Amino acid sequence: MSELRQNIITRDWVIIATERAKRPDQFAIKREKKIILPHYKPHCPFCLGNEEDIRLESFRISDDHGWKVRVIPNKYPALSPVGERVRFTDNIHRALSGVGFHDVIVEHPRHDLTTALLSVEDIADILFAYRHRYSQIRQDPRIETVIIFKNHGDSAGTSLEHPHSQLAATPVVPFQFRSRIDDAIRFFDDTGDCIFCRTIQDELTENKRILLETEYFVAFIPYAALSPFHTWIFPRRHTSSFHKITDFEIFDLAYMMKMILSKLYYGLNNPDYNYTIRSSPIAEGETKYFHWYIAIVPRVTRQAGFELGSGMYINTALPEESAEFLRTFPLPLSHP
Amino acid sequence: MSELRQNIITRDWVIIATERAKRPDQFAIKREKKIILPHYKPHCPFCLGNEEDIRLESFRISDDHGWKVRVIPNKYPALSPVGERVRFTDNIHRALSGVGFHDVIVEHPRHDLTTALLSVEDIADILFAYRHRYSQIRQDPRIETVIIFKNHGDSAGTSLEHPHSQLAATPVVPFQFRSRIDDAIRFFDDTGDCIFCRTIQDELTENKRILLETEYFVAFIPYAALSPFHTWIFPRRHTSSFHKITDFEIFDLAYMMKMILSKLYYGLNNPDYNYTIRSSPIAEGETKYFHWYIAIVPRVTRQAGFELGSGMYINTALPEESAEFLRTFPLPLSHP
Repeated sequence: MSELRQNIITRDWVIIATERAKRPDQFAIKREKKIILPHYKPHCPFCLGNEEDIRLESFRISDDHGWKVRVIPNKYPALSPVGERVRFTDNIHRALSGVGFHDVIVEHPRHDLTTALLSVEDIADILFAYRHRYSQIRQDPRIETVIIFKNHGDSAGTSLEHPHSQLAATPVVPFQFRSRIDDAIRFFDDTGDCIFCRTIQDELTENKRILLETEYFVAFIPYAALSPFHTWIFPRRHTSSFHKITDFEIFDLAYMMKMILSKLYYGLNNPDYNYTIRSSPIAEGETKYFHWYIAIVPRVTRQAGFELGSGMYINTALPEESAEFLRTFPLPLSHP
Repeated sequence: MSELRQNIITRDWVIIATERAKRPDQFAIKREKKIILPHYKPHCPFCLGNEEDIRLESFRISDDHGWKVRVIPNKYPALSPVGERVRFTDNIHRALSGVGFHDVIVEHPRHDLTTALLSVEDIADILFAYRHRYSQIRQDPRIETVIIFKNHGDSAGTSLEHPHSQLAATPVVPFQFRSRIDDAIRFFDDTGDCIFCRTIQDELTENKRILLETEYFVAFIPYAALSPFHTWIFPRRHTSSFHKITDFEIFDLAYMMKMILSKLYYGLNNPDYNYTIRSSPIAEGETKYFHWYIAIVPRVTRQAGFELGSGMYINTALPEESAEFLRTFPLPLSHP
């Protein structure tokens, strides 16, 4: 019989469907042949040498050979930095002008790389770019929330191959943030604890779903993971906003990201995935009840009508087995 | 500039991204060639003549030629009807035995049909089967919520071609249901109105996003549709639970479903889609604040990291334009 588990942070119920469960390695992506990308593509706007109007660039990290990471506006932005934040309210309609920021972080000059194949230093540069833009944008009084995310692969929502991630800064606090924060406050008031700190402590004590521990971070597949290999990376130190990350923590996190994404890359054959940095709404600042974190969601299964119609999830992998598989999966010796 | 709209029922903010907006017909699915399915497939377990152990069947509608609709247990059930509902609570872990029901509704003996191509009478039979099983299962004291849904096509989560839908009866109330009901109660207490009735009234008054009105039902693309062509079908009469639908309403709804799904079938070239019937949790029964409805979600775009990381949505279609496109799209004269 399957088991239902409640994810205490999202409050979602997940059906851990053991009747349908596959072995962890059965989630590996089947490909007819290995996709080999070129270092450079003439029509890729992110490739070295193809940079468009340089004045639009909001940040770059360079070395003697040129740029390493660039931040530019999304060419098809969902939100625009020009204009006032104006509210329209009429009967039951609530609307807002689409002001905000929609950045693209070009992660590397080369077309054929992906986070798992970058060096720890390269990944640290990407994280420095995130922190820089987050810190800058949060000063804008029109912005309430900054969401950093990466779409890797078609089924994760991107058709662009060149390694990149995105930052969206919205003029509202998403309802889902408010809802989860309300519950975190209640937990704090009832118990005196941050629900995230308690979860990290619990995972470390149980020690069944931990993927990796570093000096400053812990990665695990949560007890009620919403989908197979759904991974959370938490800073051990209680901080609410990503922009408070220190330089030491950035290097440590870069190593953690490389290791986890490499395990996925080799263990599941370069699956499509999303990651997202979940950070406190700006006006909340530092609180005792919110703890920023990174969620990584490999796209190895699909959400269907049941999920759409209930907000519940069916996970066809046992979190303990998925964690053991990734934890013990040997990275190739030739891994860069 | 884009516009943010709040969906007053889900409370989600949606970015209506006009900068990226496509014309409605650009969402039509491109296929290299028309897929022609056979009437019968030897290995399809749902095809006429391939029925497995008939004793497992929980319901069927027949005529002189044989069965028209059958209800059978899912072969890989997420939930099982045998066993006790047992709770486990330990520190921050909450779990439950996976008791419940997971039915498959085989919608037609023929392999090659889909709802848009069925007759109104055939669709009414499917709805009768839904109502029968819903009414039966809600008597089981272990069950809290019944979710009826259809996955049509690969990207909607099914690889089975034979027309079918599913019913899942869960031993918990999904958190998302509770959250939305809480807000519906607050709206009722503040205004004296059902938020759903108010939305229907508002859509009828504005008359910009209506797809079709029948005697008992109204179909529209909501003001803050979460994705392109995201459609809601509401009964005009305030009732909280789907199982209260009358025979007259079933025939009327069958016509409505046929019309809406045919518009999608011809207008967008048979897109993958999900539909789901959202009905009151069983123990809530009839209330003044909850109103059952059907949501249809064509899978013409993908959720990416932004949606996963925020719970917000980016809709690249203007709901008013999508509605006009479907409303005015001419069905072929030869349409069955």
